[in-house]
Amino acid sequence: LGITVKPIVVNDRYINPELGKYHARLRTLSRSCQDIKEKFGATTDGIYYLTTANGVMYQSFCDMTTAGGGWTLVASVHENNIHGKCTLGDRWSSQQGSDPKRPDGEGTWANTITFGSAEGATSDDYKNPGYYDILAEDVSVWHVPNGAQLQNWTSDSILRYHTETKFLSNSGGNLYYLFKKYPVRFGIGECSKDTGPTSPVVYDTGDKHSTKTLYGPSVRDQFEPGFITFRVFNEEKAAMAICSGIKPIRCHTEHYCIGGGGHFPEKAPQCGDFTGFDSDSYGSNTGKRASKELTEAAVLIFYR
Amino acid sequence: LGITVKPIVVNDRYINPELGKYHARLRTLSRSCQDIKEKFGATTDGIYYLTTANGVMYQSFCDMTTAGGGWTLVASVHENNIHGKCTLGDRWSSQQGSDPKRPDGEGTWANTITFGSAEGATSDDYKNPGYYDILAEDVSVWHVPNGAQLQNWTSDSILRYHTETKFLSNSGGNLYYLFKKYPVRFGIGECSKDTGPTSPVVYDTGDKHSTKTLYGPSVRDQFEPGFITFRVFNEEKAAMAICSGIKPIRCHTEHYCIGGGGHFPEKAPQCGDFTGFDSDSYGSNTGKRASKELTEAAVLIFYR
Amino acid sequence: LGITVKPIVVNDRYINPELGKYHARLRTLSRSCQDIKEKFGATTDGIYYLTTANGVMYQSFCDMTTAGGGWTLVASVHENNIHGKCTLGDRWSSQQGSDPKRPDGEGTWANTITFGSAEGATSDDYKNPGYYDILAEDVSVWHVPNGAQLQNWTSDSILRYHTETKFLSNSGGNLYYLFKKYPVRFGIGECSKDTGPTSPVVYDTGDKHSTKTLYGPSVRDQFEPGFITFRVFNEEKAAMAICSGIKPIRCHTEHYCIGGGGHFPEKAPQCGDFTGFDSDSYGSNTGKRASKELTEAAVLIFYR
Repeated sequence: LGITVKPIVVNDRYINPELGKYHARLRTLSRSCQDIKEKFGATTDGIYYLTTANGVMYQSFCDMTTAGGGWTLVASVHENNIHGKCTLGDRWSSQQGSDPKRPDGEGTWANTITFGSAEGATSDDYKNPGYYDILAEDVSVWHVPNGAQLQNWTSDSILRYHTETKFLSNSGGNLYYLFKKYPVRFGIGECSKDTGPTSPVVYDTGDKHSTKTLYGPSVRDQFEPGFITFRVFNEEKAAMAICSGIKPIRCHTEHYCIGGGGHFPEKAPQCGDFTGFDSDSYGSNTGKRASKELTEAAVLIFYR
Repeated sequence: LGITVKPIVVNDRYINPELGKYHARLRTLSRSCQDIKEKFGATTDGIYYLTTANGVMYQSFCDMTTAGGGWTLVASVHENNIHGKCTLGDRWSSQQGSDPKRPDGEGTWANTITFGSAEGATSDDYKNPGYYDILAEDVSVWHVPNGAQLQNWTSDSILRYHTETKFLSNSGGNLYYLFKKYPVRFGIGECSKDTGPTSPVVYDTGDKHSTKTLYGPSVRDQFEPGFITFRVFNEEKAAMAICSGIKPIRCHTEHYCIGGGGHFPEKAPQCGDFTGFDSDSYGSNTGKRASKELTEAAVLIFYR
Repeated sequence: LGITVKPIVVNDRYINPELGKYHARLRTLSRSCQDIKEKFGATTDGIYYLTTANGVMYQSFCDMTTAGGGWTLVASVHENNIHGKCTLGDRWSSQQGSDPKRPDGEGTWANTITFGSAEGATSDDYKNPGYYDILAEDVSVWHVPNGAQLQNWTSDSILRYHTETKFLSNSGGNLYYLFKKYPVRFGIGECSKDTGPTSPVVYDTGDKHSTKTLYGPSVRDQFEPGFITFRVFNEEKAAMAICSGIKPIRCHTEHYCIGGGGHFPEKAPQCGDFTGFDSDSYGSNTGKRASKELTEAAVLIFYR
């Protein structure tokens, strides 16, 4: 049963076209989308096969068109419940409340846990082996409305940008190593002297002005748009992982940075994947409150 | 290392029989079990390889025998804790309590999140890419006792039925699109004027009478057996996803429908994957309480 | 598109070396690492392809060197929050608190749910299909510091041992069947007359003395090192799954056994994957408290 050989090809054509498509995908199996692009000349956005150094195989989305292509989707930060402060689904901060005894929270930024799927990346958190396995130079970030289907991600995005500074090279080659060097851990540093790497960005959708308006009006003078910044602390020494599209110049980073460690001391609830974007009045985009567009969009992270 | 070619076949037979079985499975790679049956004549129940339109590959169980076969398992609704009301594991309603601020709850019925595995479908919730990717006409539903092993599902089932009305064709071709059209969302509709699609069913295990007795004695006059109904509201405007084997004719649907949005206003706890099946006295099958058999069986959902 | 055949090999060499490595891995596809070793002579630790009897394919880590090799990693028990008592992440006990109405807790020890990944096994709980599918004779257990990378597991381990008694043969051939026979369920047995199987172990890293010192000083006279013991009850009839490296001779097993059912009646919080290792003062290794080394190491379980 099943141990005799059967033909899969007749006259140089696959009997089963789906098997043919699968084999075509498999032929470009690589460590990263950049490798797939460079070695096999792939130019189409879509799902490709990838492998870690250890030989763990997985599938992810490759952006083969933006700024030369070769971008591997490695993660998405999705806020499943802006009212839930470090509750279930806050995998990029803490899922068990704000707790000084768990300063790293889930530890997701600097460990090898994986979860979610590429096709579900706008409906759920996502992290694949590429996050810790791929050695890269730059990042690309897309803010894609929740629930958008993969084939519409590019057109639906409200903000897209990438770095060209190769800043990852100085931090081990990816975010896993970067956040080992700059832990997202409550209490181990101060605003702003312990801020991690920052890099200017090149916009692919949106610009400095549109970036600014995504955040709350009363905090727009607290950052400079046109950058991406990693591992910041706020006034209460709470750690945040990424300030998307901006470089903070003040210390209320919980209103414009995402991800985090496991403790946010302030009374007003800020703990969560999207920290204090809501500031008790979700999506109103008044005062410190981020816009509904930004709050209801997943943050997709690519490496190249 | 690993880059030279080695033979996998000698004298037309696989050196490694497991590789032969794998290749046999792979040869029928298709978008659905229906395709596998029609294109390759598969007649055996079991695990097959499937692919989404985007090229995401996954494995699921195909029922190749019931009513002509070609049924793809796409989901299971498993109640892991009937005493937990919208707690962890209630992925088909809410995992974060009953909360009017989260009217859709987890949103699982209408998003592309996937979780679980086919072999674990009677011990855990399950949802694979077929749920949103396959375009189908009918559904089949099996109520399989918790923990039953895959090879025993058919014989162990307490209730099995399928539709033949092709009702999915009018709602986008699968439940993902059906529930986008008829959201499982608290407060957006009323019983019974906003009830979604309903279809008569053909029984494969059990009948109208046995269906009736699975539910609580005092609610058996509140529905008509022999149907499957989608997206209903109860008196308090709580939304439920599926009324399995029945068509409600009254409004206490929390006692005979499953899945849900994120809010169930009534004081008596009803929020959860199996809503108010227990009605504070689990499995007693007295009053409104569903039977132990039904409460301790996973609801497996197939497309064709 | 994708349905014509393209060469993957030129002059007996793979055009894409990654595809060559993948095919090399796939050639040894087997039901267990033991099969891979015996049938294909594999001698290298690493990631291999495995399949269940039903044909579900997965990847896991094979230890091909210890005591003859052939060990399949099937699970890891990882404590993500020693302060959280039966909270999220306590998949090997209960994730919904200590509750006598859920005597089995998550039921993980005796069901077919799978989760996690091999490369993430020291950062998260892990359970693959091999846990219930492979038929084996012995177990091997590694205590690997949290976050250790796969390539360093062997050298980083603080304790490694295996059995040679073939004790699994008497309990169905794996832990899934063993724990069906000896349920990890609160209240169904007593210390110590209902203790499950125990077996002497052979040490690969550490010894009887080092095993002893990993546990709290004041409980070191409550067990005999040099064994592994399955399914024990403590004085309050709470069930635990594994006493790693030891055979209990008293009944305060919550301080030196891991995993559990869903209820731990004592007031002092003991419910969790690592039960009462902390005993309200985490990692101090004074009194009943286990060492920081042990508490911050994942317990990897292998079959052969």
